[in-house]
Amino acid sequence: MADLYAPKPEHKFSFGLWTVGNRGRDPFGDVVRDPLPPVDAVALLAEVGAWGVNLHDNDLVPIDASPADRDRIVKEFKAACQQHGLVVPMATVNLFYDAVFRDGAFTANDAGVRTFALQKTKSAMDLGAELGAKIFVLWGGREGTETDACRRPDEAVKRLREAVNALCEYSIDRKYGFKFALEAKPNEPRGDIYMATTGAYLGFIPTLAHPELVGVNPEVAHEQMAGLNFVHAVAQAWEAGKLFHIDLNDQVPGRYDQDFRFGSANPKSAFFLVKFLEDVGYDGPRHFDAHAYRTEDYDGVRDFARGCMRTYLILRERARQWNADPDIQALVAGLGTQGRRGLGYERLDQLTMEVLLGVRGGG
Amino acid sequence: MADLYAPKPEHKFSFGLWTVGNRGRDPFGDVVRDPLPPVDAVALLAEVGAWGVNLHDNDLVPIDASPADRDRIVKEFKAACQQHGLVVPMATVNLFYDAVFRDGAFTANDAGVRTFALQKTKSAMDLGAELGAKIFVLWGGREGTETDACRRPDEAVKRLREAVNALCEYSIDRKYGFKFALEAKPNEPRGDIYMATTGAYLGFIPTLAHPELVGVNPEVAHEQMAGLNFVHAVAQAWEAGKLFHIDLNDQVPGRYDQDFRFGSANPKSAFFLVKFLEDVGYDGPRHFDAHAYRTEDYDGVRDFARGCMRTYLILRERARQWNADPDIQALVAGLGTQGRRGLGYERLDQLTMEVLLGVRGGG
Amino acid sequence: MADLYAPKPEHKFSFGLWTVGNRGRDPFGDVVRDPLPPVDAVALLAEVGAWGVNLHDNDLVPIDASPADRDRIVKEFKAACQQHGLVVPMATVNLFYDAVFRDGAFTANDAGVRTFALQKTKSAMDLGAELGAKIFVLWGGREGTETDACRRPDEAVKRLREAVNALCEYSIDRKYGFKFALEAKPNEPRGDIYMATTGAYLGFIPTLAHPELVGVNPEVAHEQMAGLNFVHAVAQAWEAGKLFHIDLNDQVPGRYDQDFRFGSANPKSAFFLVKFLEDVGYDGPRHFDAHAYRTEDYDGVRDFARGCMRTYLILRERARQWNADPDIQALVAGLGTQGRRGLGYERLDQLTMEVLLGVRGGG
Amino acid sequence: MADLYAPKPEHKFSFGLWTVGNRGRDPFGDVVRDPLPPVDAVALLAEVGAWGVNLHDNDLVPIDASPADRDRIVKEFKAACQQHGLVVPMATVNLFYDAVFRDGAFTANDAGVRTFALQKTKSAMDLGAELGAKIFVLWGGREGTETDACRRPDEAVKRLREAVNALCEYSIDRKYGFKFALEAKPNEPRGDIYMATTGAYLGFIPTLAHPELVGVNPEVAHEQMAGLNFVHAVAQAWEAGKLFHIDLNDQVPGRYDQDFRFGSANPKSAFFLVKFLEDVGYDGPRHFDAHAYRTEDYDGVRDFARGCMRTYLILRERARQWNADPDIQALVAGLGTQGRRGLGYERLDQLTMEVLLGVRGGG
Repeated sequence: MADLYAPKPEHKFSFGLWTVGNRGRDPFGDVVRDPLPPVDAVALLAEVGAWGVNLHDNDLVPIDASPADRDRIVKEFKAACQQHGLVVPMATVNLFYDAVFRDGAFTANDAGVRTFALQKTKSAMDLGAELGAKIFVLWGGREGTETDACRRPDEAVKRLREAVNALCEYSIDRKYGFKFALEAKPNEPRGDIYMATTGAYLGFIPTLAHPELVGVNPEVAHEQMAGLNFVHAVAQAWEAGKLFHIDLNDQVPGRYDQDFRFGSANPKSAFFLVKFLEDVGYDGPRHFDAHAYRTEDYDGVRDFARGCMRTYLILRERARQWNADPDIQALVAGLGTQGRRGLGYERLDQLTMEVLLGVRGGG
Repeated sequence: MADLYAPKPEHKFSFGLWTVGNRGRDPFGDVVRDPLPPVDAVALLAEVGAWGVNLHDNDLVPIDASPADRDRIVKEFKAACQQHGLVVPMATVNLFYDAVFRDGAFTANDAGVRTFALQKTKSAMDLGAELGAKIFVLWGGREGTETDACRRPDEAVKRLREAVNALCEYSIDRKYGFKFALEAKPNEPRGDIYMATTGAYLGFIPTLAHPELVGVNPEVAHEQMAGLNFVHAVAQAWEAGKLFHIDLNDQVPGRYDQDFRFGSANPKSAFFLVKFLEDVGYDGPRHFDAHAYRTEDYDGVRDFARGCMRTYLILRERARQWNADPDIQALVAGLGTQGRRGLGYERLDQLTMEVLLGVRGGG
Repeated sequence: MADLYAPKPEHKFSFGLWTVGNRGRDPFGDVVRDPLPPVDAVALLAEVGAWGVNLHDNDLVPIDASPADRDRIVKEFKAACQQHGLVVPMATVNLFYDAVFRDGAFTANDAGVRTFALQKTKSAMDLGAELGAKIFVLWGGREGTETDACRRPDEAVKRLREAVNALCEYSIDRKYGFKFALEAKPNEPRGDIYMATTGAYLGFIPTLAHPELVGVNPEVAHEQMAGLNFVHAVAQAWEAGKLFHIDLNDQVPGRYDQDFRFGSANPKSAFFLVKFLEDVGYDGPRHFDAHAYRTEDYDGVRDFARGCMRTYLILRERARQWNADPDIQALVAGLGTQGRRGLGYERLDQLTMEVLLGVRGGG
Repeated sequence: MADLYAPKPEHKFSFGLWTVGNRGRDPFGDVVRDPLPPVDAVALLAEVGAWGVNLHDNDLVPIDASPADRDRIVKEFKAACQQHGLVVPMATVNLFYDAVFRDGAFTANDAGVRTFALQKTKSAMDLGAELGAKIFVLWGGREGTETDACRRPDEAVKRLREAVNALCEYSIDRKYGFKFALEAKPNEPRGDIYMATTGAYLGFIPTLAHPELVGVNPEVAHEQMAGLNFVHAVAQAWEAGKLFHIDLNDQVPGRYDQDFRFGSANPKSAFFLVKFLEDVGYDGPRHFDAHAYRTEDYDGVRDFARGCMRTYLILRERARQWNADPDIQALVAGLGTQGRRGLGYERLDQLTMEVLLGVRGGG
């Protein structure tokens, strides 16, 4: 039984350095865990069975590192990845932590900030390319407002387009071959963030100069914060050929960004998500953008990371059972029947619950 | 295995006439199911294995029935209950459907409406007592506002107190022996409903003339609409000796009142609820205040009702497994250990998920 | 002062027949107002100063009307519009009320339902064209699920695309010249509705066969139900050239669909919306998709309709004051200053509040 | 006009040291403002016109200060208050920042943590008493869970009761004369916080050994996070004689804890709140528990603080206008009329909006 749920490289499970390295700071409390150096994070991820490790530029290289320091750090990190057999499938850029971005990065009113944000992102792309990443995620966490008096919101869209176009050009010029994955979020840390949902980015992409290079990186928590059905958003992205990456975690609707262990807030919606990804044959990374509770030490961080992957695999197995269940398949076969009065969805959903809860045929 | 999840009288599963009799009307659509006469509802509930049936006055007796009609209807209903072996553990009053209550019942600005609401409730108590009910639920669905310009909210509290005091007096005078269970809801059908949460009623009860007669009837959907943790509310009520009744269903946070099949929106929170009720030995009715999807005919209504009870019993079994799981119990035994750095809650929660999903020890 | 806020034709204020004709039915209560015949609704709208009247097919023509009845009804309605000087800028179709659509219309599993939905929509387009409408709104209120077990969500997207493509063809064939405006909503009456946000539709449109014919109809309440910033959604649509229509009302986030009088739930967000529409020169209809409280008779319905328009005009005047306020404009002029430490947004927002509340210059 | 909205001591406006001293750190970003020493905060508050300053123990005295340092710091702070004419109406304790409280304070599973939390609170009471505070606020920000597997929720209630009882005893023993004000919050920083609403605390208080010493401290943001009507909660507390303190700020429903400037998210609900407090004659502190946007320097912090008080006074003036408006008062006088069909609430609310927006009788 245990083997069934053990992570393997073909599952493409990845974690950000910032996830296992999260130190437990929150708006009302201080850090609770010591820093986890990147090379130790790589070792930890290898120990728990991950396939890939992702990073923001400053997760690895401090914002004020000298070029020599930068090169040494990168070299050590590559060595650690090689030693532990981890790949770097995705890279991204931190445009939210430093105070300079407090009013946004690509959409900031201060043109100097916008220029700096572009330069910083290009450097992060250089770093990602050097590490072998083929996906570059852009999360505009500070692109937003507390008061809409500060900027016309259509101006923000224009600035964002200009930035993404410039980054596409840079990737083309350097022959990096990046696919960009845009990550939406409705709010936090800004009162409202522009491009609040995955749908908003799907609408934005066709207006770009190189739409073929740009897709989305939907995150469970970010859609669920707004109470939206995550699998519907993922399905629209998939059907449009734009599901370039995915961020897995969990979140109770209508709250602060919780980044809980995958499947731990609502296993039913996680089930439908895993089922969709497996049914359509999504073959990109399964990236867990989550972190351990603040009650935990690094043993708990390992439990957290193992739990993310294990729950994914349990739900994948449940999805296979669902697809093989004769009672369910009989109902599914009749779904298109014309003129039916009662559609049998209560029964179908109850059988789904019973597959999920492991009371139909083994478990 | 099937037997394990078959409903029995000792489980005290009850349904309102309005639940299986719900015809599928909603704000944007018409009815989809024919009326279900109360005696047929009793037969349906007996068929699926329920123990009790609850009712609003007008679920059984039309608001404009003559006394003779009323007596005949009640007689037939009692006969049906007796024939099918169903009890009537709870009765309540409909103070929300008729247009007269459009601005509230006990808290309406129109004193004539307040008087009528009291009279109607007393008649509903007469009916409930005649049917053997010992619990009387009060849900003030129209006690609220769309604009707070219409009434001082403290005045509403006073009016509500006056009404509940009068109803307690009436129950004492008539020797009905009712326990009153007050049911909170934050909004819908009013913009805001007074006494928005179970907690608000727990604060209101000690200000009554007969607090010992009055407790609460928490409803899953009503707390979860506001994104609140339902088991915390139930636990506070239980600990205060005020858990007189409970309404089981399911609901995604931050939405319209969905009244979904128990456990179908989020089985994890349903699990903690069932575990709490079973652990503390709650022995009141397990009342399902939910209804079938609008896609269903009466076969689907049966599936819905069976699913509510079956999921409860599956989760009860999962709770027993949790209590018997040696790894979990080892963690639980160490919960109070002083000076621990890592608290092991990620592991504890992951094991809980795996019990829930049926991948630890049978299923 | 009164003149300043009196509605005029150039303001392009329109109401749906279903808005002033709403009878106050809700999930927990019966109708409270008598039916308002369409010709009387036209008279009422003219009386309060509206410019346009919109309709679903069945707001005017009962679903089971004979062709002769249909023609008579349409003729009388056109006469009433002409008599009262009202135009019909927009038409739409009701694909949600009848039980046949309980599992969706264009996305239903039953192919017969999908065919019927297309036919019904084409008839509604015929009606709209006959009445002179140039905008055709599509709101897929039943296109969704209570359980995602019933359909693959990407299949729903494909079905929806097929339907919209067919409707575009029909409009082209008949030379109707319609612009289609797609209206998103996250949930209610379905558990989850596909195409949950305006952004989702902006992403869907470029995948259509005739994207140039299709835009969006954002509704205040529908974005705010999900807690999203409405003006950001409108701005993205505008900037993409896709703001074909707009539905104005109000809504407290995270609740049932309230459809409150425009500006009555949160005047600050309404202010930023009006300011945006006026600043960019949006010249389409200002359509109020709202209804009077259930406490009201038809005098209250008139108050409601007058209030929608009056609040719009008050906020328009406040927007003009904002644009003319020297202190505010001094702050705005400095917004792009490079290298500033304190950005002055607290002051800017406070001045905005004071303009809104009428304590800066005139009022 | 300016004089009308200038803060005066009789308005009893107070701010926490942590509000103007907030440095702008958030979950995704670093501090943006230099530390503000408590004596400088006192000067700043005096400069903007505040009457009182409140504090957590560690806002003033570092958690690791020596007794000698503690006494020196307190002496300097008292001198600064005296010099600037500020009072200290309320004190509280920080039971959330330090890592020791990561699983709660009074409800932690570790008995050593519970003991330490009590000791720390008693020291904070000593400090508050020394500074002349008569109100002691308790906010149990860490009393909650991410997984309900970690503790029976009724056990948490018992532990909380034991702690509050002990603190009441301590206040009595020391003759401090404190009134305790319990502050509810639904979530953040914990996944779920026990005692999620003001109502929950109103239900808890009557179960205490000294209920007469204990009331509530409702906070706008904390109720509105859960989408609840704040003025209804305040009214219930007031009517029960339990409104011992109040925390004013603003918050969009269903989001992270925003702590925005009072009245800036929704001036309409702020209006009804101010109107209620003024109408009933609440004479406690008007405490602003909010902070400036992260875009601001200390000039912006001053703007923020001035804006909180100024908006309160503007809304107070609007409430007076409402009470004096003859059209509104005519409607109010008819509110109780029996047998009315249309209740006129649309008109009443529209007039309220127009008072609020300053378009009725001056502004």
